Amino acid sequence: MTNKTFPSWPDVAPQLIETAAGRAPADTVIRNGKWVNVHTREVLDGHDIAIKASRIAYVGPDASYCVGADTQVIEAEGRYMVPGLCDAHMHIESGMLTPAEFARAVIPHGTTTMFTDPHEIANVLGLEGVRLMHDEALLQPVNIYTQMPSCAPSAPGLETTGYEISPEDVSEAMNWPGIIGLGEMMNFPGVANGDAKMLAEIAATQRAGKTVGGHYASPDLGPDFAAYVAGGPADDHEGTCEADAIARMRQGMRTMVRLGSAWYDVEAQITAITEKGLDPRNFILCTDDCHSGTLVNDGHMNRVVRHAIACGCDPVVAIQMATINTATHFGLEREIGSLTPGRRADVILSSDLTTLPIEVVIARGQVVAESGSIKVDCPHLDWPDSARGTVHLGHHLTARDFELAAPEGANSVTANVIGVVENQAPTKALKAELPVKDGLVEGEGPVCQIALVERHQATGGVTNAFVSGFGYEGRMAMASTVAHDSHHMIVVGTDRAQMALAANRLAEVGGGITIFRDGEELALVELPIAGLMSDRPASMVAADADKLVAAMQDCGCQLNNAYMQHSLLALVVIPELRISDLGLVDVRTFQKIPVIEPFND
Amino acid sequence: MTNKTFPSWPDVAPQLIETAAGRAPADTVIRNGKWVNVHTREVLDGHDIAIKASRIAYVGPDASYCVGADTQVIEAEGRYMVPGLCDAHMHIESGMLTPAEFARAVIPHGTTTMFTDPHEIANVLGLEGVRLMHDEALLQPVNIYTQMPSCAPSAPGLETTGYEISPEDVSEAMNWPGIIGLGEMMNFPGVANGDAKMLAEIAATQRAGKTVGGHYASPDLGPDFAAYVAGGPADDHEGTCEADAIARMRQGMRTMVRLGSAWYDVEAQITAITEKGLDPRNFILCTDDCHSGTLVNDGHMNRVVRHAIACGCDPVVAIQMATINTATHFGLEREIGSLTPGRRADVILSSDLTTLPIEVVIARGQVVAESGSIKVDCPHLDWPDSARGTVHLGHHLTARDFELAAPEGANSVTANVIGVVENQAPTKALKAELPVKDGLVEGEGPVCQIALVERHQATGGVTNAFVSGFGYEGRMAMASTVAHDSHHMIVVGTDRAQMALAANRLAEVGGGITIFRDGEELALVELPIAGLMSDRPASMVAADADKLVAAMQDCGCQLNNAYMQHSLLALVVIPELRISDLGLVDVRTFQKIPVIEPFND
Repeated sequence: MTNKTFPSWPDVAPQLIETAAGRAPADTVIRNGKWVNVHTREVLDGHDIAIKASRIAYVGPDASYCVGADTQVIEAEGRYMVPGLCDAHMHIESGMLTPAEFARAVIPHGTTTMFTDPHEIANVLGLEGVRLMHDEALLQPVNIYTQMPSCAPSAPGLETTGYEISPEDVSEAMNWPGIIGLGEMMNFPGVANGDAKMLAEIAATQRAGKTVGGHYASPDLGPDFAAYVAGGPADDHEGTCEADAIARMRQGMRTMVRLGSAWYDVEAQITAITEKGLDPRNFILCTDDCHSGTLVNDGHMNRVVRHAIACGCDPVVAIQMATINTATHFGLEREIGSLTPGRRADVILSSDLTTLPIEVVIARGQVVAESGSIKVDCPHLDWPDSARGTVHLGHHLTARDFELAAPEGANSVTANVIGVVENQAPTKALKAELPVKDGLVEGEGPVCQIALVERHQATGGVTNAFVSGFGYEGRMAMASTVAHDSHHMIVVGTDRAQMALAANRLAEVGGGITIFRDGEELALVELPIAGLMSDRPASMVAADADKLVAAMQDCGCQLNNAYMQHSLLALVVIPELRISDLGLVDVRTFQKIPVIEPFND
Repeated sequence: MTNKTFPSWPDVAPQLIETAAGRAPADTVIRNGKWVNVHTREVLDGHDIAIKASRIAYVGPDASYCVGADTQVIEAEGRYMVPGLCDAHMHIESGMLTPAEFARAVIPHGTTTMFTDPHEIANVLGLEGVRLMHDEALLQPVNIYTQMPSCAPSAPGLETTGYEISPEDVSEAMNWPGIIGLGEMMNFPGVANGDAKMLAEIAATQRAGKTVGGHYASPDLGPDFAAYVAGGPADDHEGTCEADAIARMRQGMRTMVRLGSAWYDVEAQITAITEKGLDPRNFILCTDDCHSGTLVNDGHMNRVVRHAIACGCDPVVAIQMATINTATHFGLEREIGSLTPGRRADVILSSDLTTLPIEVVIARGQVVAESGSIKVDCPHLDWPDSARGTVHLGHHLTARDFELAAPEGANSVTANVIGVVENQAPTKALKAELPVKDGLVEGEGPVCQIALVERHQATGGVTNAFVSGFGYEGRMAMASTVAHDSHHMIVVGTDRAQMALAANRLAEVGGGITIFRDGEELALVELPIAGLMSDRPASMVAADADKLVAAMQDCGCQLNNAYMQHSLLALVVIPELRISDLGLVDVRTFQKIPVIEPFND
């Protein structure tokens, strides 16, 4: 276990005082900037910042008395000095990057603090995986706080995860140096029903004085919502409309509003502030999930803040939503989130407050990025073998593992088929008449096979079913160990031999996403860490992902971002039909249903 | 040691959920009120509140589904439902009342939370005294959080307190259940100079995750202020003008603004919000010091909020300044400060949001006051003998103890005289020619004698000097064991025999304030607890204090509230001239000076 704890304010207070009083020189002075003050909601011309021991010692009209022979002087030249941006809730694994590479990707965009919930790795490696993410997070030159995942499995009884998080795990994690609270409490029916295990996790977090993350993914704002709020979650990022945002704030939660790679929830909700005029202090911006491509091409929290401004939000208010509001929520307002004495010296220099170009990024007093280029090392953890070798198939798979036997004597069957919907997480529960050939049910037309391959316990289990809507043609298969939320392996294909090839290939490389056609691998994204993450840079992962998308298109799939749909087909908490290691699940009723409807001759 | 800890949110979450979900009835439902929502800064008509286990379970348009056979229903009848008011910084001892009696006095005014710094008793009884105040606070039906006093003595080397607070004391207190942070760090020159002891107290508080109270009583906003801010205090209530308020907020402190019995700091500072339009979230109201007469006749935090509104502040914003802003500052926003689920059910019903009449007060779900009358018991601690017998004179005093010998052969002398100024805490350093009679220096005209009688260690020490400005006539003396900050005994008189009578009388009753004329006691305020507080109700103490003021007037003193000036004559941190057990102190230079100027024949 590796820890790197950052010196606290009281650790360095004597140095800060000496500098502020003018008795000792600053390490760094930023000269002549416009101070974006998120406490008072002002922009103040002509200010200097003196930095000592990685923290801010002084902000005022003239820090020249803090400049000594060895003081580094950075000329702001009238640019805005903005507090480093905070992402209030996000999953690093969504970028398919390790914490180090994620940090390297987002630092040039001005993100200096992240609140991350390593929910995905928790499903694969449990507490050990959370600890590894936490430990790599603490190695970084920016602030990455970890939220202890709360819900693995997210749907108890409907899937088998690699590990089940217990209240005891939560209690233990609350003592780790980088844990800031509980990750999103997704089991909202459980909380509303008084589930003892969920309440024990919440209680352990509250008793540790930390923040309970919420996740109330329902439009129902009646008694179920009231009961969830009474259970203790302090924030929620699942709102999608203005009424959701307002309801959460009125009930004393903080509303977190997402602009992720696939989440566009800001425009619909920010009107609570811009039009309804509510107090903005409880409105917080976050990303939740960002693909590496978004990080490489579009940005991170700077993208979210810009978007909020483009939606009509006052720029300083939008910056508050990504700085001090977030810091206050997590009890960190004297540590991060503003440019004031004692806080970590996390500063962005930008020449425009509306378009927010990120020109210089200073984190903990160090220039970490300039003009979009990273200037520091983001150290990697030495990930243990247990985190790298996580694809445990019970045996070498063959086409036979993917066979679906038809009922005796049937020439065709009625199958329950998962219907993929473009750009949406929910699926459709379809039915299809499928032909039988040599006693096996075969996909046909838009319907091809899907398999959930168990990979945590090496049971050798393969659950077979059918999926419709990808548009695949020819003899192909695609496999992925990114398979929310329990992250077994999802294989989709038109040909059982290709499915076996793809599955075995992922076992060979330790996880990732691959696509095969006619016995040839068209594209591979290697994700050796837990089968979820690469430890290569975001640009390389994004390039591989682009090749994968191209290969999917070559195979006939014209859906937008369909590898996302692929990875969500086992997500047994979102309707309508999903696959898990336990079978086909109708998420409208939380019941397992048969793949082949009973045969009535 | 007595503790009563209030059940936490997680302790009762299962009950709150059952009630919110409609599966179990509420204890109490408040029906049809206007919900003053301090999170969103809205007033929402037609809302109900359901209360269970002393906390809020539900707030919404209709709680009728939470009403069972045994549910108490309170009809708000369209009145405003306002969160119970919070006093962010105050000294209970200033009311000359124990915590129980202070609570009893302020609950009918709608105060349901206080943040108290028992600085005065700390000077007399040290950590034991703080613990007793803390313990009685925890017995009350409202929330009284204790700030651990930081500065006893407040002027090291210039006075001898009954006890010296150490960093170890602070560390120990941080583990007590009712401690919320460090009391006002008055030694601002010490912090700015990096004083190790002061920084150790601050560090112990910050490391415990608690709030460091500030006290920067200087108009200088230059490097000394910057150094103080860099030292860590999180708030300050010593500002007196708009620039003070703005400077503190910009620097990431919360500005606390006082309306006490003698502090009128709101009007000058609230313009930072009402005129300059700064974000009000860091602006907090408090009283600091209230006499019992103010509590009986004028109010408490309701008086402060009304005044803020009268100064032009939006009523909901003013209420935020006495509720959620305060709660957030102390890390308690999920415990108090708003009417939302999980929080303590502290609710005021009021029919007008501008004049803020306090009609019903509910604390922790219980009706604690109605129409100005208290409805609950405020339990007294069984104060130990050590807290009651705190006036330790070395011997029975006589007129001889108050003699000031003149230099050999002098017929008159030049004396350094403390000049009292009406309505001001600072004094003037005067000089007066005084006659000598029988070898003793005598007061004359406006100048009478003052003595500081040691009462903590029974040294028998009496420091004699002269004071001018009270206007006393005839043979009289007044004595008080309220004698900021070290709280020995201050005796002022025109006659040494009367001075001895008054001093001995206070030793006899265990402390308080008395006034004698011609051998007869004109008035007495008994303050048996630490010589600072009565355990009788505020109305009785206020009546006694009124009699005392009348007696002072009878003796010729026409100054406003002069018993306040009397009690401050030993406050060796405020200029210009003061008396302490160590002698006469010139606070302009922090030097002791002689009472009688050297005699030049």
